[in-house]
Amino acid sequence: MDFLTKKIPDNELKLMYKDYDSLGFGMIYTDYMFTMKWTKEKGWEKGELKKYEPMSFDPASVVIQYSQEVFEGMKAYYSEDGRVLLFRPFDNAKRMYKSAERLCMTPVPEDVFVEAVKELVKIDKRWLPKEKGTSLYIRPTLMGTGVALGVHPSPEYNFCIFITAVGAYFSSGFNTVSLYVEDKLVRAVVGGVGDAKTGGNYAASLLAGLKAEKEGFSQVLWLDAKENKYIEEAGSMNIFFVYGNKLVTPKLTGSILPGITRDSVIKLAAHLGYEVEERNISIDEVVKGIKDKEITEMFGTGTAAVIAPVGGLCYKGETVYAGDNKVGKITEELYNKLVNIQYGEDEDIFGWVETVDTI
Amino acid sequence: MDFLTKKIPDNELKLMYKDYDSLGFGMIYTDYMFTMKWTKEKGWEKGELKKYEPMSFDPASVVIQYSQEVFEGMKAYYSEDGRVLLFRPFDNAKRMYKSAERLCMTPVPEDVFVEAVKELVKIDKRWLPKEKGTSLYIRPTLMGTGVALGVHPSPEYNFCIFITAVGAYFSSGFNTVSLYVEDKLVRAVVGGVGDAKTGGNYAASLLAGLKAEKEGFSQVLWLDAKENKYIEEAGSMNIFFVYGNKLVTPKLTGSILPGITRDSVIKLAAHLGYEVEERNISIDEVVKGIKDKEITEMFGTGTAAVIAPVGGLCYKGETVYAGDNKVGKITEELYNKLVNIQYGEDEDIFGWVETVDTI
Ligand SMILES: Cc1ncc(COP(=O)(O)O)c(C=O)c1O
Ligand SMILES: Cc1ncc(COP(=O)(O)O)c(C=O)c1O
Repeated sequence: MDFLTKKIPDNELKLMYKDYDSLGFGMIYTDYMFTMKWTKEKGWEKGELKKYEPMSFDPASVVIQYSQEVFEGMKAYYSEDGRVLLFRPFDNAKRMYKSAERLCMTPVPEDVFVEAVKELVKIDKRWLPKEKGTSLYIRPTLMGTGVALGVHPSPEYNFCIFITAVGAYFSSGFNTVSLYVEDKLVRAVVGGVGDAKTGGNYAASLLAGLKAEKEGFSQVLWLDAKENKYIEEAGSMNIFFVYGNKLVTPKLTGSILPGITRDSVIKLAAHLGYEVEERNISIDEVVKGIKDKEITEMFGTGTAAVIAPVGGLCYKGETVYAGDNKVGKITEELYNKLVNIQYGEDEDIFGWVETVDTI
Repeated sequence: MDFLTKKIPDNELKLMYKDYDSLGFGMIYTDYMFTMKWTKEKGWEKGELKKYEPMSFDPASVVIQYSQEVFEGMKAYYSEDGRVLLFRPFDNAKRMYKSAERLCMTPVPEDVFVEAVKELVKIDKRWLPKEKGTSLYIRPTLMGTGVALGVHPSPEYNFCIFITAVGAYFSSGFNTVSLYVEDKLVRAVVGGVGDAKTGGNYAASLLAGLKAEKEGFSQVLWLDAKENKYIEEAGSMNIFFVYGNKLVTPKLTGSILPGITRDSVIKLAAHLGYEVEERNISIDEVVKGIKDKEITEMFGTGTAAVIAPVGGLCYKGETVYAGDNKVGKITEELYNKLVNIQYGEDEDIFGWVETVDTI
């Protein structure tokens, strides 16, 4: 790759972590990281693969003071036939491009993004756990590293990528989670930055997230900020409601993160013959639908869990359960089909899978 | 101060910057900074005064990935009788405490905040320019420096303070600025983090800020996010409208930063015999008020400018000017009175001024 300055010698590569069960999420960092710098004068400089290490920032830099930062979350999978696979990496590249534009940052060219991810995954591939469900979680991050105390876009950017080895999300079985419907605090609003993957959205979500956890729920389910009425998305997943053979998911209004798993489920479900509706859906409609047993299944979609079956929703103190709080059939079908595509076991009918290398 | 570990020897102190005119804002950094660390195990450790230098962050730290950061902006002034003064520092400490709580961060005890500011200002006092209008701009910052990739509050915090020497805001005369009323993009919404001084609010504001600048305006004037109708605040100032002898300013709904200058103007104006109303005020009411000449003056309030006379507002392509785009009498009176208190020239009737040291 001609955008890289230096390669790490092979003998510096550590052996990978072996204990799949204790992997968890975001606990085990690989050896290397990728960094690439942009300045007004020079544009994008050559990228570098180097040891994972702390980075040095001016305390007055725009990423620290004004949170000018966007990121992505994506995974690399080990396929039975020995390949290392990425899932829709160009869609992550595209989303980060858009996020960067919204935050007035110099975007990373999409092909550079994907190539950089591939180069880093290659050099860190020994860390890729081989059990199904495990993966490498890849975190590309673009930061405003220059100083502009007067609230302006940074004159300098750093694009870095690091990787953590992650365990199977459903290591204790494919079970339902329940969500806490937050009706006062909000995550984002139309006209804001809710559809960009930027740190500030997550900082803003912490308080409601802690509240949900204290009440015993796994994530928040956010409502729209204007009317506190329409369902938006969960803490780190988009949300689907299954009405018999029809899937309903909130339409992208501008305040919701356009999840790549969400898009994949929409396409896959349509391909499997299910009807899919993207529309506004109010919390009252959902609660009624659950009570009337019209909503038969619910699930969240996101890179971390792929598909997380949702059993209950707690709204204004009352928790209602769909499908007897059991994993639904369509949920399970979609999960299996999607995971099989991601792990290279089923045919890649949508052209979503990229091979990085072989192990 | 027993919360500090080490003092910088006096002979290490550089001489201060002499060229007041080219000071600008955020250009000239002083020699030293203050840092203080909090961990779950040890709580707040002793703070440290040290050379201003880049800090080291894990790329996966919560401040970088999820923008868990809050900050303050405040000034130190040189008084004619040779003292170094702070203006309402305990109010900055209180606001940062609240901001931190909203962002699920360990707040800095208010007395520690103020003492740390004082210690740093003392050691950097040779940088304090002596011309009226100039000052030290102080930037206390609290950051989530620990790693928690799973979107949780940081297990570690760093409280740092740094200082820049700043020139007079109105070095080319006390003139009006014009604001661009943004009617699509929004800064914050009720239920969000608009009333916290957190980086994400500023990242979200960059795009509209650039747009306003390109159109030739100095800042954005934000409308509420629910109805795009009620005036909130400007890019880095709160806003006041003068109707004859009455001042009207948007009430604090939860999405507006509760400015310390705003509060000072409210108290000072009331003391001077003006009527002050804090209430919802729509952009239509303001445009009509300007056209009908009921609104006689407008001004913004913030630490940077103290009071910035506002001449025109551009709304939906039309710019309307109040008071013939000249600086209003009440605006000027309030500016002079407030600045005189800040610089220790007028009696400190409200108990707002803290003496740090003498030069
Ligand atoms: C807020 C939020 N919504 C939705 C998603 C799902 O997006 P994706 O499917 O691209 O991972 C994520 C990220 O994982 C998220 O953080
Ligand atoms: C968004 C915003 N509003 C208002 C203000 C004014 O606040 P203060 O008077 O405390 O400086 C500021 C900060 O300067 C600000 O950034």
